[in-house]
Amino acid sequence: MTFDHFPSKLLENAVNEFSKLPGIGKKTALRLVLHLLKKEPDEVARFSKALTQLRDEVKHCRICRNISDSDVCNICSNPARDHRLVCVVENIRDVMSVENTQQYRGVYHVLGGIISPMDGIGPADLEIDSLLERVSKGEADEVIFALSTTMEGDSTNFYIFKKLKDHKIKITTLARGVSIGDEIEYTDEITLGRSIVNRMLFENFM
Amino acid sequence: MTFDHFPSKLLENAVNEFSKLPGIGKKTALRLVLHLLKKEPDEVARFSKALTQLRDEVKHCRICRNISDSDVCNICSNPARDHRLVCVVENIRDVMSVENTQQYRGVYHVLGGIISPMDGIGPADLEIDSLLERVSKGEADEVIFALSTTMEGDSTNFYIFKKLKDHKIKITTLARGVSIGDEIEYTDEITLGRSIVNRMLFENFM
Repeated sequence: MTFDHFPSKLLENAVNEFSKLPGIGKKTALRLVLHLLKKEPDEVARFSKALTQLRDEVKHCRICRNISDSDVCNICSNPARDHRLVCVVENIRDVMSVENTQQYRGVYHVLGGIISPMDGIGPADLEIDSLLERVSKGEADEVIFALSTTMEGDSTNFYIFKKLKDHKIKITTLARGVSIGDEIEYTDEITLGRSIVNRMLFENFM
Repeated sequence: MTFDHFPSKLLENAVNEFSKLPGIGKKTALRLVLHLLKKEPDEVARFSKALTQLRDEVKHCRICRNISDSDVCNICSNPARDHRLVCVVENIRDVMSVENTQQYRGVYHVLGGIISPMDGIGPADLEIDSLLERVSKGEADEVIFALSTTMEGDSTNFYIFKKLKDHKIKITTLARGVSIGDEIEYTDEITLGRSIVNRMLFENFM
């Protein structure tokens, strides 16, 4: 199906706007728009307002760079968190993932990406200086790297590590190993090899 | 991943609104919203405006019920079309599909759905009366059924056929080049084009 015969310019505009979103083709865009057309006008207005309001009013926490409704985010302003334990993540989604584990009581630093020369993203494009500033001011005892275990993630870890290593702080990274629930048979060799080398006391799992 | 830890209420609202759309889960919604967050505010405003404008301003053609920017759609107001040849389709997407074949020079009648007792859609919910009115007024020489070749499509064809058969018009249906069980929307243009050209008398199918 091609899209040469829109019966309405308004329809065409809406479809074009939707299909600018990542992973949304013209066909899906049309389906979504026709769905919205069947909804009450105030439902569509609410959808539309949620987007402009988000874009116009959302802030980034001035401490950790996480998305926030105020100058300092909920996590950074929570006195029950350990503010001297800083977990470095790539993006907001990763903050949400770590929060969902309910295993972490420290704070975050959101880089806003990882170093990726292929995509033209260098250290200057990321929130690395602001992390160094937090550390330089003596605000952290430990920095945990929680970036993806990809080449880009490892490069970024290494870059930041070099910048931090002269400060008197502990620098850690997420444990690498076999995922919980994974079968040994299907675990890739590198992961398996590393998890043998970095084997841990079994009593720590009990 | 669960979604209990949104760092921002504005973000949460936008994700919730997106995930009301069909086929958009929370995860996709978050991806789309974070994409929009990276865009310029006026781009987001344009997206948002295209939707409200569509919902608030779009009309339905008073003749064929197709979506239109004016009271009478482009097709119904085009003097080059054959206005006495009326193709009955389920929805706007199907008008676009038939138009894309470039094989059809008549006009349309958009039912707005098909009879589907399972979904609680009966004849009264569709634009069947307005079709009968067009025919009663002597506005058509031929009515072509171009509904999906599913049980619901066939029931709808049959229901309309019973209502129309006493009028002195030709009643045809798409040639069965369309495979049984296929939806019009996903039929390739060549098959669809040919099946309009080779349309057959509906009574031959009973």
